[in-house]
Amino acid sequence: MLSQVDNDILTRVGADLPMGRLLRQYWIPFLLASDLPEPNSDPLRVRLLGEDLIAFRDTTGRIGLLANHCPHRGASLFFGRNEEAGLRCVYHGWKFDVDGTCLDMPNEPPESDFKDKVRVLAYPCVERAGVIWTYMGSVKPLPALPDLEWALVPDDQRYLSLRVQECNWVQSLEGAIDASHSNFLHSALKKKDAPPALFGEMTQGAVYRDRDPHPHFETLTHAHGVLVAARRDAEPDTYYWRINQFLMPFYTVFPPTGGDPPCSGHMWVPIDDNNTLVWHFTYHPRRPLSEPELHAMRYGRNGQDAFHAALDRFRAPLARAYGGLHPDRARSNDYLLDRQLQRTRQFFGVVGGWAQDAAVQESMGAIYARWQEHLGSSDVGIIAVRRYLIDAAREFVEGHAAPPGAADPHGYCARPAALLLGRDASWADAAKDALKGHPGESLVVV
Amino acid sequence: MLSQVDNDILTRVGADLPMGRLLRQYWIPFLLASDLPEPNSDPLRVRLLGEDLIAFRDTTGRIGLLANHCPHRGASLFFGRNEEAGLRCVYHGWKFDVDGTCLDMPNEPPESDFKDKVRVLAYPCVERAGVIWTYMGSVKPLPALPDLEWALVPDDQRYLSLRVQECNWVQSLEGAIDASHSNFLHSALKKKDAPPALFGEMTQGAVYRDRDPHPHFETLTHAHGVLVAARRDAEPDTYYWRINQFLMPFYTVFPPTGGDPPCSGHMWVPIDDNNTLVWHFTYHPRRPLSEPELHAMRYGRNGQDAFHAALDRFRAPLARAYGGLHPDRARSNDYLLDRQLQRTRQFFGVVGGWAQDAAVQESMGAIYARWQEHLGSSDVGIIAVRRYLIDAAREFVEGHAAPPGAADPHGYCARPAALLLGRDASWADAAKDALKGHPGESLVVV
Amino acid sequence: MLSQVDNDILTRVGADLPMGRLLRQYWIPFLLASDLPEPNSDPLRVRLLGEDLIAFRDTTGRIGLLANHCPHRGASLFFGRNEEAGLRCVYHGWKFDVDGTCLDMPNEPPESDFKDKVRVLAYPCVERAGVIWTYMGSVKPLPALPDLEWALVPDDQRYLSLRVQECNWVQSLEGAIDASHSNFLHSALKKKDAPPALFGEMTQGAVYRDRDPHPHFETLTHAHGVLVAARRDAEPDTYYWRINQFLMPFYTVFPPTGGDPPCSGHMWVPIDDNNTLVWHFTYHPRRPLSEPELHAMRYGRNGQDAFHAALDRFRAPLARAYGGLHPDRARSNDYLLDRQLQRTRQFFGVVGGWAQDAAVQESMGAIYARWQEHLGSSDVGIIAVRRYLIDAAREFVEGHAAPPGAADPHGYCARPAALLLGRDASWADAAKDALKGHPGESLVVV
Repeated sequence: MLSQVDNDILTRVGADLPMGRLLRQYWIPFLLASDLPEPNSDPLRVRLLGEDLIAFRDTTGRIGLLANHCPHRGASLFFGRNEEAGLRCVYHGWKFDVDGTCLDMPNEPPESDFKDKVRVLAYPCVERAGVIWTYMGSVKPLPALPDLEWALVPDDQRYLSLRVQECNWVQSLEGAIDASHSNFLHSALKKKDAPPALFGEMTQGAVYRDRDPHPHFETLTHAHGVLVAARRDAEPDTYYWRINQFLMPFYTVFPPTGGDPPCSGHMWVPIDDNNTLVWHFTYHPRRPLSEPELHAMRYGRNGQDAFHAALDRFRAPLARAYGGLHPDRARSNDYLLDRQLQRTRQFFGVVGGWAQDAAVQESMGAIYARWQEHLGSSDVGIIAVRRYLIDAAREFVEGHAAPPGAADPHGYCARPAALLLGRDASWADAAKDALKGHPGESLVVV
Repeated sequence: MLSQVDNDILTRVGADLPMGRLLRQYWIPFLLASDLPEPNSDPLRVRLLGEDLIAFRDTTGRIGLLANHCPHRGASLFFGRNEEAGLRCVYHGWKFDVDGTCLDMPNEPPESDFKDKVRVLAYPCVERAGVIWTYMGSVKPLPALPDLEWALVPDDQRYLSLRVQECNWVQSLEGAIDASHSNFLHSALKKKDAPPALFGEMTQGAVYRDRDPHPHFETLTHAHGVLVAARRDAEPDTYYWRINQFLMPFYTVFPPTGGDPPCSGHMWVPIDDNNTLVWHFTYHPRRPLSEPELHAMRYGRNGQDAFHAALDRFRAPLARAYGGLHPDRARSNDYLLDRQLQRTRQFFGVVGGWAQDAAVQESMGAIYARWQEHLGSSDVGIIAVRRYLIDAAREFVEGHAAPPGAADPHGYCARPAALLLGRDASWADAAKDALKGHPGESLVVV
Repeated sequence: MLSQVDNDILTRVGADLPMGRLLRQYWIPFLLASDLPEPNSDPLRVRLLGEDLIAFRDTTGRIGLLANHCPHRGASLFFGRNEEAGLRCVYHGWKFDVDGTCLDMPNEPPESDFKDKVRVLAYPCVERAGVIWTYMGSVKPLPALPDLEWALVPDDQRYLSLRVQECNWVQSLEGAIDASHSNFLHSALKKKDAPPALFGEMTQGAVYRDRDPHPHFETLTHAHGVLVAARRDAEPDTYYWRINQFLMPFYTVFPPTGGDPPCSGHMWVPIDDNNTLVWHFTYHPRRPLSEPELHAMRYGRNGQDAFHAALDRFRAPLARAYGGLHPDRARSNDYLLDRQLQRTRQFFGVVGGWAQDAAVQESMGAIYARWQEHLGSSDVGIIAVRRYLIDAAREFVEGHAAPPGAADPHGYCARPAALLLGRDASWADAAKDALKGHPGESLVVV
């Protein structure tokens, strides 16, 4: 449990609050590059850390992310005309480039220099690996993009999706650190109904995992985040270790199962205090994703639901930021909970891993009152990550420490791992190399 | 009119407020037993006195009413698996019985005793007369259930329905104490369009009632509530007295009309400050309800609307507590007000007594600003009941008095009455016995 | 830009706030007379300056505007029976006339004089020129109605429409003072797609207007409001002047184009802080409106959208005040923005002048944070009108000055003008007579 004060520090992302200030020191992935498919494509509404913004790709292909309100009289730049190297407000024709510079002010007399005095708030954007990232902080020069392994591999080795979750970002993130819930939330009542290995065949490690619902947890903090290791009995002289990674400020990866499997993880981006943009990535560090793997992500496998939420992106009304990213299995319809399925075959009765996660996390309310919790031994990872985040925010705003990892992109090249170790081995030492990213080399996953 | 302070005391039901504390000393009817039809049936969302709760019937048939949020990390127990003698959270498998005891914590190591240290908030429930009651107070041992007469008769002598009204519970309750509005709100413009006696033939008493729209009111407070008597001229030497009862904290009964008629009343249960669970009961103390009587309750009589609101219970999305209990004649569609009907035949133009009541009560707003009222002589009963409730709440929280009636279940065995008395008779004395419940004997209703 | 304090003074209309107090000193147009088409027609919900009210026409044809809540126990008078010279509450039959007098209290005993002690809040109403006006102030005797020119001409010389805009009234009004936006918001990319003159042929003045997107603005305040003049280069020795009028507290007129054209303007009536009742009037001071002119208002011209918003008035659910006046091109569907149209033919891509205005004004949010603005030289008129309004409110509540114009109805007989003047002429002198209303004489519009 957390105090009410710490709960606020942990969860709230306003620009003047500790966590909001800390988060603004990191690059933030906020759209697929294909959401702005070509020069001059339609502007989109975006909301990040509680700020309403307009994203566009100008006629030269550059990405802009501007304040929603035109600095003149506040009309929304969402309506803007995407013209020659800038976005032009439809109200009086003021035109801004991706840097926020006012290029034209046609309702002012030609001799006026007013346009040189007005800028619109603009956040720098870059594209990498099919994703658009922005930086909402004030440090100059800009830090480098984090070298996340999925972002370093060729395009055909990667699959990305996103959806909106209607609860706080930390609540969402915690689900990815909590490695014990899959024995329950995502499980079947009978072995024959169990979710298949997502990719390839079930391994011996997965058998160990499914056999033991109460692993022992250990954590290790480091310069970029927290390692969360779950230990299960394997053979009489071995333990089976599964190691998740949390990387500042909102990245998580978890070990896959299967033979030479792709690796998956999430980016839990705060839209505002009450909503999260949930990124899901799957990649193989060594080879292109196969057709069966892509099929499992899009449509599922062996009668299971698609691994990635399949949304009809941006086809819904545009009036709302990320309007098309709200799944149809939602709080308003109880995620299509099927009580008969719950009684007879599945532990939960909601179809699809992502929907199962969304259901329990949203059911806590927008921001859970963590002072009402009762954390057990399976929550060791959650406790460590919360503490890491709160300490980082506090020390940053007090001027005692830089944002962990923000200045060191290479530390982000990291992986999950799953290992079989002798009972007296140190997992941290033994897994050290396996936990580093090695684009071009397969994961170490038993 | 009430001061703003008294209006708050009267209406607000939070656990730390005077009326909220008082209400928690009484048994609260909150579901039909048939809403949880069998062991292991689907859990249901409930909201009472502003608290979100989950009701379920375990595999042994016992009823549980637990806090919505699992004490572990706050996932909703609505999603819970109804398993062997307990409800199991789908997130990590923690399982609780109807008493709130944690029976199993499968993600903790076997040697852990953490489950002995964690409980979920659980309110005791009992079933009587087809209704599930709970007790949200702290007095131990539990008080006895109130001996309401309708709850003491055999099942075939009783009919129950419920619906949600979108306003404060006192505002709803006041409509049942206010015996003068039926001459207007529920009336017809022409005798031939007048609502028939609900059951059987119109009596002479009903003729007296309809003839005099401005009765003289008197009240009498007693250990369990308030008697509200309406006096109308009958014959030159007689008065016609109709006596309603208010019983603590939210029960009302009113005298029926017709020959040997069933008796009806309401229970006005606060869902929260702004919503009321409206129970409607009809029973005959001596004999089974007849087919024509049941037909009138379900479908109406002589072209009138059903006496009881007919809702498709719990078929609506479950996402909301009591989701299926919101009638289709609602504020959002002006209760299907028919102005032509209002002009030509009915005083109001909304069809159905319950909908007429809901319309005017909800139109006051969620909680009416009673300091803007102008109460007349027909409001004597309302004034007395408000005062009774406010005094009871104040005296209870100040430690000066016990909750009226809570410890004496027998005093709840009470009835309404309608009597023809000599002009010099005392109604309170003359009606004394008629106002007591006598299961097995017909009502005294002239 | 404005300070936050001045922004509040300018925009907020509550009865106890400076602008709210000032606005209540003026007559307020709030319904078409045809909305209450005949004696005894259906009561309507109205909301003005944040107050919920019920409008009705009694059996003698008089208009009443009463508080929503019956003074007895607060039931809504919207449900009221429109009976012989009064509105009768359906709850207990209390009946009030258009002056607020209680005519009948049938649930009180005949000897009671309680009805002489109770009144319902009632605002006086008058009809003129097809419009119902009310006065919510306290000055007695009532001031005279303003002699707006459109209201002084015969009925067949006038066309009126109304709609709701979901933002603050000043934000709406500012759009009508801002004469430079039509070169952008309402314009076409190519001359052949340009909106035609609304009525008749394009004049030389309109050519001057369209040629110069950055006019020079001058303003002149006077006893009833503000003149806003836009100067454009015409011929080498002439300027083209277009003069808009703002009249207290919410009237605007703007110069039309075309040969002997009708004149148009708006009344921006505050429903509450966040919603505006937008009146649009078009009239010809000398002759009946022609069929082609009426057709252009209702259905548009040359493929353009209707000049007046065409709404299916009061056919929508009655549950909401002005429920039927919310256009179907709305914020929730981005005003049916057509990006392809925006790319190829129109500056904006939303169809219809009124919808274009609504889109940008509502996109600022309910009340724009004016301290974030950057006002340019085209905003001179807006600055002057805001200052006029704020000063008037402040001086009125401090007792230093009467509400400008309220006591002098004749000063409201005013017009816009568009003139070609020598470069050394004073527009204020030269246009003086043209700016006065002359029912029976055509406008001076070049």
